[in-house]
Amino acid sequence: MRSVSEHLEHLLTLVSPTEVEAVALAEAVGRVLRGDVVAVADAPPWDNSAMDGYAVASADGSAGSWRVSQDIPAGHAPLPLEPGTVARIMTGAPMPQGADAVVPVERTDAGTDRVRIRDWPVAGAHVRPAGADMREGGVVLAAPRRLRAVDVAAAAAAGCAEVAVARRPRVAVLVTGDELVAPGEPLGPAAIYDSNSALLRAGVQEWGGAVTSVEVVRDGPQALLQALAGLDADLVLTAGGVSAGAYDVVKEALVPRGVQFAPVAMQPGKPQGWGRIDGVPIVCAPGNPVSVAVTFRLFVVPMLCAMLGVPAPTTRPLRVAQGWRTPDGRAQLMPVSIEGDTVRPATSGGSGSNLAGALAKADGFAYVAADVVQVELGATVDVMGLVP
Amino acid sequence: MRSVSEHLEHLLTLVSPTEVEAVALAEAVGRVLRGDVVAVADAPPWDNSAMDGYAVASADGSAGSWRVSQDIPAGHAPLPLEPGTVARIMTGAPMPQGADAVVPVERTDAGTDRVRIRDWPVAGAHVRPAGADMREGGVVLAAPRRLRAVDVAAAAAAGCAEVAVARRPRVAVLVTGDELVAPGEPLGPAAIYDSNSALLRAGVQEWGGAVTSVEVVRDGPQALLQALAGLDADLVLTAGGVSAGAYDVVKEALVPRGVQFAPVAMQPGKPQGWGRIDGVPIVCAPGNPVSVAVTFRLFVVPMLCAMLGVPAPTTRPLRVAQGWRTPDGRAQLMPVSIEGDTVRPATSGGSGSNLAGALAKADGFAYVAADVVQVELGATVDVMGLVP
Repeated sequence: MRSVSEHLEHLLTLVSPTEVEAVALAEAVGRVLRGDVVAVADAPPWDNSAMDGYAVASADGSAGSWRVSQDIPAGHAPLPLEPGTVARIMTGAPMPQGADAVVPVERTDAGTDRVRIRDWPVAGAHVRPAGADMREGGVVLAAPRRLRAVDVAAAAAAGCAEVAVARRPRVAVLVTGDELVAPGEPLGPAAIYDSNSALLRAGVQEWGGAVTSVEVVRDGPQALLQALAGLDADLVLTAGGVSAGAYDVVKEALVPRGVQFAPVAMQPGKPQGWGRIDGVPIVCAPGNPVSVAVTFRLFVVPMLCAMLGVPAPTTRPLRVAQGWRTPDGRAQLMPVSIEGDTVRPATSGGSGSNLAGALAKADGFAYVAADVVQVELGATVDVMGLVP
Repeated sequence: MRSVSEHLEHLLTLVSPTEVEAVALAEAVGRVLRGDVVAVADAPPWDNSAMDGYAVASADGSAGSWRVSQDIPAGHAPLPLEPGTVARIMTGAPMPQGADAVVPVERTDAGTDRVRIRDWPVAGAHVRPAGADMREGGVVLAAPRRLRAVDVAAAAAAGCAEVAVARRPRVAVLVTGDELVAPGEPLGPAAIYDSNSALLRAGVQEWGGAVTSVEVVRDGPQALLQALAGLDADLVLTAGGVSAGAYDVVKEALVPRGVQFAPVAMQPGKPQGWGRIDGVPIVCAPGNPVSVAVTFRLFVVPMLCAMLGVPAPTTRPLRVAQGWRTPDGRAQLMPVSIEGDTVRPATSGGSGSNLAGALAKADGFAYVAADVVQVELGATVDVMGLVP
């Protein structure tokens, strides 16, 4: 049976980074930067005052009464400092040529024509030197990274109106299962509510992809192939119809199209399908809700990250506060709740793959290696977070 | 001087939770749930098979050859089990009345008319009981919480097509400063690039608000008042023009309108303004980029959380890997980089409030209490994360 890591490695060969596109800063937060952001000018562009006060030539004088020869608000280019005078200056305004220090207004009588200066400054006092924050041509934000608000602000300060980000991977979702009814509809006698559509759609949104379509296919292989034929996507995800049962429509339809189906040594989520369909990578998850969530987190999230051009999220080592048994020979993904740096199973139901409600109680999946049969109290497990 | 906590407490009295609105599951991820999600039916709605195999009445027989009296795919209501027979059944399909256990197909010869069963099951084997995941009327997701993909899936499994979430707080942004030039434009002789617009817009987006407008006001108090008059918002944020300088347009325009301006014991970000304008809460930050970022994280984020109806984010205690000096009598917000469970100043520039580029190197703000003058190596500091 293929191992989880072998399977993931193979899936990653199916995808490649999406193109780079330019977006305005107003749309940039949360996107993945793919081109370094470089400063178009020094920032600040010139020496400027760190305080409201008076710009002086420090070598020229001492405390006492001085004539104020100009007034320099922020945003206005000053004249050179007239020798023997001082200039009134606002925070952020450019230092006049010839001045090299600022006396804060609190150290003066705040005069406008003449000013009494109590403490004479040393050279450089309260002056922010040009380029202290950024150098023209210097890298302000190195790609790749997910852009936070502070990163967007740094790009703005660097003079960039747009940033180069990864185009969102377009993902099409196809869910199968005769028993599935859309939430909000009445349940028939043998039906259950479809949560797989919601999980895959929201998961793709959460991890930075764009969902191009979500379709529930009920009418057998032909309908599935028809739905696939119309798709425009970078990745297709299916849920359901992949195991050894007699009505496994995805497997039936896609084996002839060259998609592979085989067990992966994991629990839940063992029956997996993968390949390409008309050149587009496809991942086929089994239909139980927790199997879908595990397949998504374990395989699809790293694929989306690879398409976006960022490293897959790392796991956190956490201590086990309540042990549990795991199957021998298969890696286990156990929904766990996290408290401080400890974890315990999120519900008493174990990793039962039908428990969609239980997933909402989980903070992550503990990844237990295939050769472990008992996760002991006090042991350390690697935990995958459920959100980026 | 008012303390940071006094000021925050006062600001929180200015805001109240936004209304609740219904959104479809397709739009729900990332939104704040404000009404509990309740299951519309038991899930699963009936006992069902956990395996592909054969449903049997465990008390009625033993291993051997059995007649297959019906075939039960998922999504189809079965007939009651004919006594003396077994029923072929697929994973997730309802158990027929009279059957109480499932023999996995792997323990049989997989026959369709007759089947040879190698291992006879005990009662309950491979049967998932009705209601094991959710009980009709039971709370599946308790409000408030930020909805993750797995939560959206749980709402779907509970039969809910919509969820009740907080309307996004509408936030208007007004930035002042004669020296500000929009990124992408040529820098004049005394200009710098405006990063405050970008920071406030992206910050509001990042924390779950909706930005209704972003305006840069250059032409004095009258233009500011005019811009304010046209706003439709739950919160107004301004940056710049609040200190003791001669061109502090926000202060000049808004003091007559009842907005208060006073120093808060913090560094950076000391001069703050706050109040209501036409009934709408307003927060006026000083104009330096790091002051804006600090004001946003320290005050505006908790206000947005209160409007959304979720608790403000908690701080993380982290160990100091490189000490620094802090001002006496003022709380300090120091941009820090985090490595494991340790922090150090993000740049050698300290908390210098003009360094927008430096912010992009930070993972958080360390909050240092007002009475600390030296943050010692090995001490513990509370760190506020920069993203939700």
